[in-house]
Order: sequence, then C-alpha cells, then structure tokens
Amino acid sequence: MKQEINIIKVGGAVVEDAESLATVLDQFADVHGHKVLVHGGGREATRIAASLGIESRMVNGRRITDQDMLRIVTMVYGGLVNKTVVAKLQALGINAIGLTGADMDIIRSHRRPLKEVSMDDGHTEMVDFGYVGDVDTADGKALSDIVESNIVPVVAPLTHDGRGTILNTNADTIASAVARALAPFYRVTLTYCFEMPGVMRDPEDKDSVIRKITRESYAMLKADNVVSGGMIPKLDNAFEAISQGVSRVVITHFNDIAARNGTTIL
Amino acid sequence: MKQEINIIKVGGAVVEDAESLATVLDQFADVHGHKVLVHGGGREATRIAASLGIESRMVNGRRITDQDMLRIVTMVYGGLVNKTVVAKLQALGINAIGLTGADMDIIRSHRRPLKEVSMDDGHTEMVDFGYVGDVDTADGKALSDIVESNIVPVVAPLTHDGRGTILNTNADTIASAVARALAPFYRVTLTYCFEMPGVMRDPEDKDSVIRKITRESYAMLKADNVVSGGMIPKLDNAFEAISQGVSRVVITHFNDIAARNGTTIL
Repeated sequence: MKQEINIIKVGGAVVEDAESLATVLDQFADVHGHKVLVHGGGREATRIAASLGIESRMVNGRRITDQDMLRIVTMVYGGLVNKTVVAKLQALGINAIGLTGADMDIIRSHRRPLKEVSMDDGHTEMVDFGYVGDVDTADGKALSDIVESNIVPVVAPLTHDGRGTILNTNADTIASAVARALAPFYRVTLTYCFEMPGVMRDPEDKDSVIRKITRESYAMLKADNVVSGGMIPKLDNAFEAISQGVSRVVITHFNDIAARNGTTIL
Repeated sequence: MKQEINIIKVGGAVVEDAESLATVLDQFADVHGHKVLVHGGGREATRIAASLGIESRMVNGRRITDQDMLRIVTMVYGGLVNKTVVAKLQALGINAIGLTGADMDIIRSHRRPLKEVSMDDGHTEMVDFGYVGDVDTADGKALSDIVESNIVPVVAPLTHDGRGTILNTNADTIASAVARALAPFYRVTLTYCFEMPGVMRDPEDKDSVIRKITRESYAMLKADNVVSGGMIPKLDNAFEAISQGVSRVVITHFNDIAARNGTTIL
C-alpha cells in the first residue's frame, strides 16, 4: 500500500497578502504526512514591473514574458515569494525547501512556440508568449527523495529549458506535473486552493458546492450547463491528472485546505 | 581518509556580469569532486532599489537593510542571481540546487544588535544595520547529505532567524560558515575569488602574489606592513576557518578558480 501525499497549490494573490498567507501556511502545517506546496506568481510581479517602468503585456488575460519580465518573475516568484514562504514554514516547524524547476533539474520545459490565439474581437493571431515554458518532464524520483527525507518542497512557478534559461510556467500546470510525477510513488491528492469554496451549482450561493464530480457526472454537469467557462479547463486538467495516476483532485477555498467542504474530483 | 570538497565563493559583481559569470561557471564546472558555490549579492540590488525609488543607505561601506531593502535583496540574491546561476550550471551538466539559509534550515542567524561603529570623521555611533543576520549555526550534515547525492549546492547570501524572517548576510561569512560546517565530513578547501590574483606584496605588480601564507609568515607580513587595510579581516577570517577545521583557504582571481596562481593560506 503506497503512502499518501498531498500536493497543495495556492494562488499568488493568496500568498502575497500577509494575512491570507498566514492562514494558508497554518493550515498547510497541519496537513499530516508527506506534502508539497506549489505557489503561484500573482500581482506583485506586475506591480514591481510597473515601478521599474516595465509594461506588463497581456494577451487574452495571459502574460507575455519578455526578457525584462522574465527577470522580474525570476526575482519575485523564485526569490521574494518562495523564500518568504520557506522562512515562514520553518518558523512553523516545517522543514521546507524552495525549488524552481531548475533546482535539481526537477521540472524541464521548452519555450512555447508561436501559438494561434483567438482574440476578443474574434480574429485569430499568432502570439509569441516569450519566455513561457510548457512542461516536458518532472522528476518524481528526485522529488520523492526529498520528501522521504521529511523535507517539504515549496515549488515556484518557474521551470528551465536545460540550456540555461529559466521559463515562466503556469502554477496549475506545475502542480499537476508534480502530482503526476509522484503518482508512481504515492497515493496523490492534488488540491487547488482559490477564493471560492469549490465548484458551485450557483456561483452566488456558497452552499451550492458540488461535493463530488466523477467523469460520468462531469459529462452531465457540462450538458446541463452547470459547469461552464473557466471551470471547464480546470476540470479537464483534473481528469487528465486522474487518468495519469493521481488518486483525486480537490478544488476548495484557501481557508479550507483540509477540504472538508470543497469539491472532490475522482 | 576524508574526501575532498571545494567551497568556492564568488562576488556579486562577478556573477552579475554575463561574461564573467560564464567564465566562472565554466571553471567551476571543471572543478573535480564535491563542491559548493557561494555567491555574493552585488550592485544589482542597489540598481533595482534605486529604480524602485528605494534609497540604499550605507554606513562605512556597509548596507543598511531596512524592510524595503530586505525585499529587494531577497528577490535579487535569492531569485534573480541564484536561479540564473542554477539554470546555467544545469546547462553545463552540473546538478545544482539553489539554497538560502532558510531552505532546509541550512543556516540560522540572529538579527545583528545595535553596533558601535567608528565613522569616517572619527566619532563613534550606535548603528542599526536592520535586517542583517550574524550566523549562529550551519547544518553540515544536511549539506553533506545533498553533496553525497551528487547535487551541487549554490548558496545565496541570505539566512533566516527561525522565526520567519529572512536576513541579509555577508557572503564571505556564509562561505566560511559552510566550510566550517563541512569540515567534520570532508577535507575542505575554501576559495575566495575576486578581481585580484591573490594577496600581493605590491598591488601594482601582478607577479608579486604571495603564494603561501602560514600563521607565522602572516605575523611577519603584518609587522612589515606588507599586508594591511581590508586584507587583514579577510586573512583573519581565513585563519579562523583553519583553526576550526578547514584544511586550507585560497584567495585568487575569478579567472583562476583552479587556483594555480593564487595565495594559499594554511
């Protein structure tokens, strides 16, 4: 019987705010057994870039990472956010280690090729997202060696291409890659924490959280239009992770990392 | 017979310049056997702070680290510089891992208390250096566990106080603390790389490098005023490291990490 491990992803906005960070870390410290924290980037990079006179270019809500912006996200995600979290976990008695994909060659990626993107006005355009990495491999053995030493990895949303370049990488993707890489070694629960209590039947009604979604019920929820918009890629990713060995995916509020009230996908 | 290990410290200015960084990393990659790289901070932090409208306050050439500056050095040293070095070492086939003192609780420090400082005009003043850490402990066992897995630590000049706060810490001090902590496990060579070819009889004459300094010859060099000024604390630290188990300390140019032409202190 494999041991359990929890991969918990929290967004950058949550981690940047001192109060919500304290809430998240207290709960993360209480999670039993093996665990990994994956954190997002967030708005701090945009703020610091603006202060330095560097414009944040977005295409359909996604950041274009030019060379200047790559320096900013490497500083903010890999330095400020990651080390702040590690130091605070140490204070809670958790022996954390901060990692990017470059550290121990944990996560390798390649620079995203030009991509056809549908723009808001309906036409499509070839977009160069710049120094953005699409994940190729995550080293589950190396991660499990760390975990088995009772050290808790804290993973920043940065990877590398193996040829000396750091690449900006979506934190949800990192969490999923880490979860799948650890699946041969553990029974993996992957938890996405955000500002909502879970997948809801009615976004206005906090009591309408759907407690459990299976592949069968997902098809029905989509057909009935209960699940739509931005939740569909999230759930598609969740089922993708499950098809690759992850035991269950939980979507829950960052106040509820133990996830008694979130949505479980399995 | 203990195995050898090389602890190599390079200054921030060297690491920030793409060309000198490439030179240093090529040489570091060629160093045989176990090794650790310690890098300094450097001028990038000052430049970025200035761009953000944060003033760098110096007292007798030493940086005052207020809360804003702590955020900057955490970003620049722990993120930008450290991860750039790690990614470039990976490209050279070195399985590097970037660490601050907070990661795996490697180096703990306490915030420096108010300190009496002699100012340039001769009077003394009590100075609060802010978020600056004086090292208490370095975990040689944890570092040697990493090294024994054939992973190469790349250590940034940041420590933590164990109560959740990152502290800015002198890179020479970090290198010395790491070297001493590893001395029970290895025969340690600690190499300080800078812009000079070693300790020189005549700073104007590059062929005047003193090849070897022992405790006895050091006393004479001081008496004869051959060694003076800023070199004295450096050499005092070197002998301190040796008295605490480090086998030898080398002071050399960053172009000469193999140190065939530098000064060896033993």
